[in-house]
Amino acid sequence: MARTVKIPEEVIDIIRNEHSFTIASHINPDGDALGSSIALALAFRQLDKKVRIFNKDGVSAVYGFLPGQELVRKEIDPEELKLSVLFVIDCNGLDRIELKDILYRKAVVIDHHETLSDFGDIRWIEAESPATGLMVYYLLKELGITICPEIATNLYVAIAIDTGTFRYENTTPEVMRIAAELIDAGANPAMISLNLYESWSVKRFNLLIKTLNTLTIEKAGGLTVAITVITDDMFRETGTDASDTENFSNFPRVIRDVDISVMLRQAEPSLYKVSMRSKRGANVSVIASHFGGGGHRNAAGFRIRGGVEEIKLKILESIGRLKISA
Amino acid sequence: MARTVKIPEEVIDIIRNEHSFTIASHINPDGDALGSSIALALAFRQLDKKVRIFNKDGVSAVYGFLPGQELVRKEIDPEELKLSVLFVIDCNGLDRIELKDILYRKAVVIDHHETLSDFGDIRWIEAESPATGLMVYYLLKELGITICPEIATNLYVAIAIDTGTFRYENTTPEVMRIAAELIDAGANPAMISLNLYESWSVKRFNLLIKTLNTLTIEKAGGLTVAITVITDDMFRETGTDASDTENFSNFPRVIRDVDISVMLRQAEPSLYKVSMRSKRGANVSVIASHFGGGGHRNAAGFRIRGGVEEIKLKILESIGRLKISA
Repeated sequence: MARTVKIPEEVIDIIRNEHSFTIASHINPDGDALGSSIALALAFRQLDKKVRIFNKDGVSAVYGFLPGQELVRKEIDPEELKLSVLFVIDCNGLDRIELKDILYRKAVVIDHHETLSDFGDIRWIEAESPATGLMVYYLLKELGITICPEIATNLYVAIAIDTGTFRYENTTPEVMRIAAELIDAGANPAMISLNLYESWSVKRFNLLIKTLNTLTIEKAGGLTVAITVITDDMFRETGTDASDTENFSNFPRVIRDVDISVMLRQAEPSLYKVSMRSKRGANVSVIASHFGGGGHRNAAGFRIRGGVEEIKLKILESIGRLKISA
Repeated sequence: MARTVKIPEEVIDIIRNEHSFTIASHINPDGDALGSSIALALAFRQLDKKVRIFNKDGVSAVYGFLPGQELVRKEIDPEELKLSVLFVIDCNGLDRIELKDILYRKAVVIDHHETLSDFGDIRWIEAESPATGLMVYYLLKELGITICPEIATNLYVAIAIDTGTFRYENTTPEVMRIAAELIDAGANPAMISLNLYESWSVKRFNLLIKTLNTLTIEKAGGLTVAITVITDDMFRETGTDASDTENFSNFPRVIRDVDISVMLRQAEPSLYKVSMRSKRGANVSVIASHFGGGGHRNAAGFRIRGGVEEIKLKILESIGRLKISA
């Protein structure tokens, strides 16, 4: 039943033998990227290693409650990096970190995303792991690290975010048992949920209401598509910006019949960022690719020029073809 | 760390020695009442006992996916009941079941609500249990019942509903470990979450949007109060009814500063049903009592006559006094 987790010996060895580490994760970091990075950094501190965390976008407001988040820096010192081992977390290439032309002693990748890249001197990639946080948990146990409340909280957030707080298909018995151990070690599920899900600003909530007011339900090739639109005017009227729209495209998914939720967000007068979320397996990455974007089967996006109605029609046309060719 | 669960010997004995059982739970049954009742009935069937489930309100649409839900009847045969042992589940009195003047062989109570009632020949009440479903789980293990996928699904739903799908303060390591065992036994967290949270009708979603459009944020005695209103017109325009409003009063709680969410639902031209939900411990049951209603610290309600603006003022006045007297 249980997955066999095999931590490469080289990962353990390099941690034991080296003394200076830089931990980096992808831009727009989510709870898995941040929680895994911070937990690993706190563990390195327990081992008396020098450690710093780099993330180009830093820590967004929603993750400000993570203990140890103050270790995350948006700048990197090339001289420090040159002398340290680089841990690449929750992604597997320098492009996703937005670092280039850098020098480091060695690069170690810890990630649960499928990849074609071969970046990294030591690569530990488990595509079937529900979260990178789960891999870090096993690594810390193997290293004999004490799972203190701070580490437990970061790992719990990592796992919670990547399993939809125990609602997605990757909510396995393994996930629940490790969550139990993290609560035992001091993670507080209610405090974490309050911070992740009940800490909206009033203006963000006002933007959501305005966004939901634009909802239309369309049919395309046998699929039901929910479309919402966020315009510059709406940002202005509510005093919000793009960072307030995280997760908005998921809301219309609560409607039983909706197969695909499409959200158009105005980025420039005639440029829109399109986010798509699917239910029941409709593959939105195909549509994103068609428009020059990318993503996963269930979540993908792209940028497109034009007016709202024109873009809607193009997307519906593309979804119609998707169904026929499926 | 772990709670000690002590199942009364008499509960085990009566199940082993009797042959006919009626399982009853409270009106407006939630996932804990229904899931616990059905899981227990399926277990009794494994033991070759005669069993039926009574609930005056039956199974609402959202719980139609529960395997075994067809065992739930909205009517009871007094002659059958007279010959059977009555199990009262997730509540502890006949008033909550809306049965009176009935005859039965013996009554067994299994509940996790605090009570002053002394109803029942055999009483197993654990106020510190996160869900009645958890108690039923321990009971079935003790009885040597095979936790088949159908039982596992019902118990998982029971536990999920009463812990806010692992977000409330009662999300203990015990809860997570038993959830893990239920997944091992065949419960499917993603399928269950899809049914519980992503199966809204379009008209219900339209009603939510209209409801959120009525949102106002008020201050009263240092507390921040979110008020929403649902009128008869809104029901008419969307083709919905009161049963579509379940959980609506929780939505404004996502706003960080909101201490109390108040929802007014028009029941008659000048009669409103008021639902209140609180965060951070503001005690809304005191306000409900003031207006002749009732409930818990975090969730309470009452009925009141008048116009919307008049009622809003009265409630804000009452909340203002609450803070002063706290």
